[in-house]
Amino acid sequence: MTHVSGRHFLQIPGPSPVPDRVLRAMSAQVIDHRSPEFAELGHAALSAIKTIFKTRQDVVIFPSSGTGAWEAALANVLTEGDRVLMYETGHFATLWKKMAEKLGIRAEFIGGDWRSGADADQIEQHLRADTNHEIKAVCVVRNETSTGSVSPIADVRRAMDAAGHPALLMVDTISGLASVDFRFDEWGVDVAVSGSQKGLMLPPGISFNAVSAKALAASKAGGTRRSYWDWQDMIGINATGYFRHAPATNMLYGLVDAIKMIHEEGLQNVFDRHQRHAAATRAAVRAWGLEVLCSRQGHESGVLTTVVMPEGHSADQFRAKALHHYNISLGSGLSKVADKVFRIGHLGDINDLTLIGALSGVEMALGKAGVPHDKGGVAVAMQYLQDTPAPGIDA
Amino acid sequence: MTHVSGRHFLQIPGPSPVPDRVLRAMSAQVIDHRSPEFAELGHAALSAIKTIFKTRQDVVIFPSSGTGAWEAALANVLTEGDRVLMYETGHFATLWKKMAEKLGIRAEFIGGDWRSGADADQIEQHLRADTNHEIKAVCVVRNETSTGSVSPIADVRRAMDAAGHPALLMVDTISGLASVDFRFDEWGVDVAVSGSQKGLMLPPGISFNAVSAKALAASKAGGTRRSYWDWQDMIGINATGYFRHAPATNMLYGLVDAIKMIHEEGLQNVFDRHQRHAAATRAAVRAWGLEVLCSRQGHESGVLTTVVMPEGHSADQFRAKALHHYNISLGSGLSKVADKVFRIGHLGDINDLTLIGALSGVEMALGKAGVPHDKGGVAVAMQYLQDTPAPGIDA
Amino acid sequence: MTHVSGRHFLQIPGPSPVPDRVLRAMSAQVIDHRSPEFAELGHAALSAIKTIFKTRQDVVIFPSSGTGAWEAALANVLTEGDRVLMYETGHFATLWKKMAEKLGIRAEFIGGDWRSGADADQIEQHLRADTNHEIKAVCVVRNETSTGSVSPIADVRRAMDAAGHPALLMVDTISGLASVDFRFDEWGVDVAVSGSQKGLMLPPGISFNAVSAKALAASKAGGTRRSYWDWQDMIGINATGYFRHAPATNMLYGLVDAIKMIHEEGLQNVFDRHQRHAAATRAAVRAWGLEVLCSRQGHESGVLTTVVMPEGHSADQFRAKALHHYNISLGSGLSKVADKVFRIGHLGDINDLTLIGALSGVEMALGKAGVPHDKGGVAVAMQYLQDTPAPGIDA
Amino acid sequence: MTHVSGRHFLQIPGPSPVPDRVLRAMSAQVIDHRSPEFAELGHAALSAIKTIFKTRQDVVIFPSSGTGAWEAALANVLTEGDRVLMYETGHFATLWKKMAEKLGIRAEFIGGDWRSGADADQIEQHLRADTNHEIKAVCVVRNETSTGSVSPIADVRRAMDAAGHPALLMVDTISGLASVDFRFDEWGVDVAVSGSQKGLMLPPGISFNAVSAKALAASKAGGTRRSYWDWQDMIGINATGYFRHAPATNMLYGLVDAIKMIHEEGLQNVFDRHQRHAAATRAAVRAWGLEVLCSRQGHESGVLTTVVMPEGHSADQFRAKALHHYNISLGSGLSKVADKVFRIGHLGDINDLTLIGALSGVEMALGKAGVPHDKGGVAVAMQYLQDTPAPGIDA
Repeated sequence: MTHVSGRHFLQIPGPSPVPDRVLRAMSAQVIDHRSPEFAELGHAALSAIKTIFKTRQDVVIFPSSGTGAWEAALANVLTEGDRVLMYETGHFATLWKKMAEKLGIRAEFIGGDWRSGADADQIEQHLRADTNHEIKAVCVVRNETSTGSVSPIADVRRAMDAAGHPALLMVDTISGLASVDFRFDEWGVDVAVSGSQKGLMLPPGISFNAVSAKALAASKAGGTRRSYWDWQDMIGINATGYFRHAPATNMLYGLVDAIKMIHEEGLQNVFDRHQRHAAATRAAVRAWGLEVLCSRQGHESGVLTTVVMPEGHSADQFRAKALHHYNISLGSGLSKVADKVFRIGHLGDINDLTLIGALSGVEMALGKAGVPHDKGGVAVAMQYLQDTPAPGIDA
Repeated sequence: MTHVSGRHFLQIPGPSPVPDRVLRAMSAQVIDHRSPEFAELGHAALSAIKTIFKTRQDVVIFPSSGTGAWEAALANVLTEGDRVLMYETGHFATLWKKMAEKLGIRAEFIGGDWRSGADADQIEQHLRADTNHEIKAVCVVRNETSTGSVSPIADVRRAMDAAGHPALLMVDTISGLASVDFRFDEWGVDVAVSGSQKGLMLPPGISFNAVSAKALAASKAGGTRRSYWDWQDMIGINATGYFRHAPATNMLYGLVDAIKMIHEEGLQNVFDRHQRHAAATRAAVRAWGLEVLCSRQGHESGVLTTVVMPEGHSADQFRAKALHHYNISLGSGLSKVADKVFRIGHLGDINDLTLIGALSGVEMALGKAGVPHDKGGVAVAMQYLQDTPAPGIDA
Repeated sequence: MTHVSGRHFLQIPGPSPVPDRVLRAMSAQVIDHRSPEFAELGHAALSAIKTIFKTRQDVVIFPSSGTGAWEAALANVLTEGDRVLMYETGHFATLWKKMAEKLGIRAEFIGGDWRSGADADQIEQHLRADTNHEIKAVCVVRNETSTGSVSPIADVRRAMDAAGHPALLMVDTISGLASVDFRFDEWGVDVAVSGSQKGLMLPPGISFNAVSAKALAASKAGGTRRSYWDWQDMIGINATGYFRHAPATNMLYGLVDAIKMIHEEGLQNVFDRHQRHAAATRAAVRAWGLEVLCSRQGHESGVLTTVVMPEGHSADQFRAKALHHYNISLGSGLSKVADKVFRIGHLGDINDLTLIGALSGVEMALGKAGVPHDKGGVAVAMQYLQDTPAPGIDA
Repeated sequence: MTHVSGRHFLQIPGPSPVPDRVLRAMSAQVIDHRSPEFAELGHAALSAIKTIFKTRQDVVIFPSSGTGAWEAALANVLTEGDRVLMYETGHFATLWKKMAEKLGIRAEFIGGDWRSGADADQIEQHLRADTNHEIKAVCVVRNETSTGSVSPIADVRRAMDAAGHPALLMVDTISGLASVDFRFDEWGVDVAVSGSQKGLMLPPGISFNAVSAKALAASKAGGTRRSYWDWQDMIGINATGYFRHAPATNMLYGLVDAIKMIHEEGLQNVFDRHQRHAAATRAAVRAWGLEVLCSRQGHESGVLTTVVMPEGHSADQFRAKALHHYNISLGSGLSKVADKVFRIGHLGDINDLTLIGALSGVEMALGKAGVPHDKGGVAVAMQYLQDTPAPGIDA
């Protein structure tokens, strides 16, 4: 082992830094998952997570990565040959579509340029065209982690209603939960997919499906042959505080404590903090004379900001320099935009000084890497933070 | 929170007590799973786990419970309508069979009385009868966690060879890995299924498939439509030290350290220690005048001992008393034997004094619960331990 | 590093096993000891520790071992040439006397045979003889950790009052705090000395002086030249929640949590649990045909039991065997009784099964070491525990 | 408990942030401090700490704060009435002098303006004037934590030699160990005093005396009546790996690991890193148009930078704002300079981005607090860091 001084700046859009307090909670001894003590933990975890999804309906917790929860969402209500409408917001929307295809689902993919979230109008048009209501589900990514654009879910729901279409609304809110606003019940979402290692400030390891009554009914009536991902069996036993098979107990310890921390700060404050940090970051990027990938106003992510690298410069070489010199991890460009962009995460358990530290790492590394840019991004971000009330701190 | 003094005795056949050292390893900060630092961790974890399966072939690590790894084993090589031969060793073998059926696989189930492991001869007969070689896989549970019987895998392999049958040999070694002898390559196993919370001394949260070249070829050629559980994608990227989707990083920290601990003690010493503790436990049970569920000599588990409750006495009420009075968790009887047996785990990170503490909890709780028994089981177990060389400690 | 399986049995009379929960509390990041946040911690720690001493007067916390708190007790009220009356209960009383002599204090030492606590009558006689009231303090060890005898402090106070003697009553309750009954205010103690690594279930590192108004007045009027150990400076600043110099912040985190745990169990339950375990241990020792060092009824310690080794057998060789074969630490005999006795700690965070595990380690090691003894001590202790209501658990 | 997002920036000159890895090392279970396993720990800790003092002579470890080690240094070699020469570098030098006086030692105090380290020439003059060699010791603070000035110890040694004076050279290197250069043997220091919570990256709780053969001889011949602080008893038993009384075992776990980390980074790299961060900080302060308290070139501390507040502005109100708005702790002005200065710690386990984060907190808080200043300090510091090779990172 070698020691590089100071804390690593983990400024990727997930996993986000796990607070020490959560790591401590997770390091408690494992218990019998059939004991009365566990039932208390199970109930606590299940009711806590509902406050984050803002739902009174069911939430299923899987020991799996978020990818697993994607599969669960599809497998419970769709089957080979079913049609779904998906929207190409970026790399992760594309992966979800490929997964659907692997499972034999026919995915109609509304093309996008990776520079905005989903367009509700286009979704409405597609649905109106589906007069036979063959489309079983509309699948949208709330926060596209590969690009830093958010899709307006409430608008999508309005579009679906306007089209009078009965499809289920399925939302990937893996990186968008507990970081940008999300309201499962109010927005009429049917299935939401999430994971632990983003706004929930946990390590990767558990994932979630929030499930509406309508989706649950659909799953009872159909879906793919399935066992591990099945909602019904899990929801049944969850009523007792227990899980179907061995739950990731120590992750649940962390989950309960992390959600407690979120409510201590205030969930709305958490959302506002992310927005404020995102705005400061975009101000810095513009001051550097660089371009933010998300080009649609109102779709910019509170979770991460993707920066377009000047032509002829490798984003990955830049990131390697940032890591070597400044002990900071930045997100890479994925697939289409590989090596062309880098991503600055401002997600989870960070504060103003962490953010400035991170932005200074970017600014100094731009210098080290010889990437053409204007100085002063950090100064602009500092001014923004100083001038803009901090949620929960400033009156 | 309330405090009950002293450490809880977690004497169930999994999760087993996690050593403090492993909990500390797991409490390190999460890192970027696309960083060079992660690649080192990934390589370390993947090569470490192979030493435990005793294989030079592939091992796939899933963020999931062991149940997930069951499904992965089936889905990668089998598809709807395929036939498999399974053996009813107990509750978990039955669950695996039910899972196969849920996935549309036709399972032929050799009945058992839950008091022994699989019988290799019966397997051979069934295979000989399958002259068209329609059976695609033979599925056996190495250590049946619900009963405390082990199946002789080397014998099963010999039976398959004797029958000249090309089926794949799939073994559930969830509770039998790093606790009772297991030799993936030497025994010609094709797919082994395991989990973290048993002999590997970790919390639940990750699971494993060891995969032979033959099984991998079969998966390339067929299997069920699948995404999350797919071996090929994972094995491909594993070569670089990375994983397909967000790995359970902190579990991998623990895995690497736990396997280091196992090799510090000596893997064979670990097996021998489990056998010695099992023998001491059986001696205690017999001294109490109670019956061990496993009735076939040579099939008794090193992992747990299942005790048959005297007629007219509730095993669950007894366990509740043991928990209340002596802060010990014992395993319950499952399905067919619910409330009729209880299970004493002697699995994972325990030692002679832990075992005697646990057995004393059983003996005192038998007294408290008014269960007819002879005193002296603990004394007999002590004598056994004193007289029998301890692996790695006594010359 | 090598791994020996299972948890070590730390059955010495201190340090006692630190509960995982306390270790987690202690592993929080250090904070600025001049911050508002620290003041909360300081107040919490200071008011918590008073509930354990059962005092409304002052408690001073030193970053030091218990030895330091001994010195503080002496230095604050006594000076070169002063006379004190001490009682030879064992090794630690002797060490305290030697310390007093090093500091130039003239200690009158009432001889004892190390098999009982202090005799209040003898103290009364000595005080009556001191007609000029030259003796400034009576120093008694509440729980003599080297022998397992307790001194009756209330009786000593009555004796002092009966003699009409104005000396201060100073009590070493290092291993006797939060383990055997102690009532600073009710018993009229003037200075009590304690440490963290015993009944308080913390690692070693901080120590305590409880200080009566009378003792504080004496310290203002005199004592030895001192700085680090001075009470007044510390008590002054403690009123604000802060400490004079850098406090052992992480130990204070642990202290607050440990005392919370003690009150969750119930302080009286903690005392009763120690007595019950001590009685079970003595029953075991007698069943082995061995002798308990403490020979005076009513003086037997709840904290530890010292066992006299049969003539011709080395206690230290026996302890080494117990450690090697059974992963248990037992306490050694000190000075006069070195190699002639061993000590079984039943102190701090243990429970019935830990105790039986420990006693089984002793019984099996007696066998391994060829020490003549009768079998059955463990059985007798089990019967005792089964028959005797457990405080806080049985109605 | 309430949660304020992100990590606290602990930018005071001690305690410094404890690395997670050290906190984990410290959270291991306590062991018997008379066991063979402990002897290994004791030897490891004692030999490790010598590499940091750069000595082959003795180092004594006390469970105490650094203040205790000050007292130990004085008490072992000096006694009531003895004369010492001390130098007023700031608050801590003054406290040490007051302590000496409390212990009856006659301290001659060379006055200073708190804006530089000790002046070797003045020391030489005082020693030359002491023709009878009555001065027993020269006491100098290596890094004056209250002001941010360092004293040139090698020069002081040269001055003493030039004066031909036999006094002992005693150095307070509490905040100057493992942060700024220190060479006990090479510089001919006789007693060095240090603590854990500074460059050693541990919580407060243990302290150190490095002791030359000459000092040890002096202590054998004299010193104050003492027990707890006595070197000889401790050095005697340390040879076996054990300590005189209960050592702060968990602090020793941390110490061994922290020193390993220091050597992984390279001790010289650690020194250079502190200097580089100090230079960047001073550049920022000057860019803000503010004054650095240390006015003597070459005496500026690598550990902290003290900033003079503009006339009419309260440093403490400023610090409170910084804490409230930016979750950063800055050091307060002490005694003479209370409320007139604030201190920026750049000590221990930090890196470039932590430093910029901290400086941005200062710059933004200056704005929030309405303190007149020029913008741009952070920008200047970033430029400095980018342009100046980082030790151990840049070639």
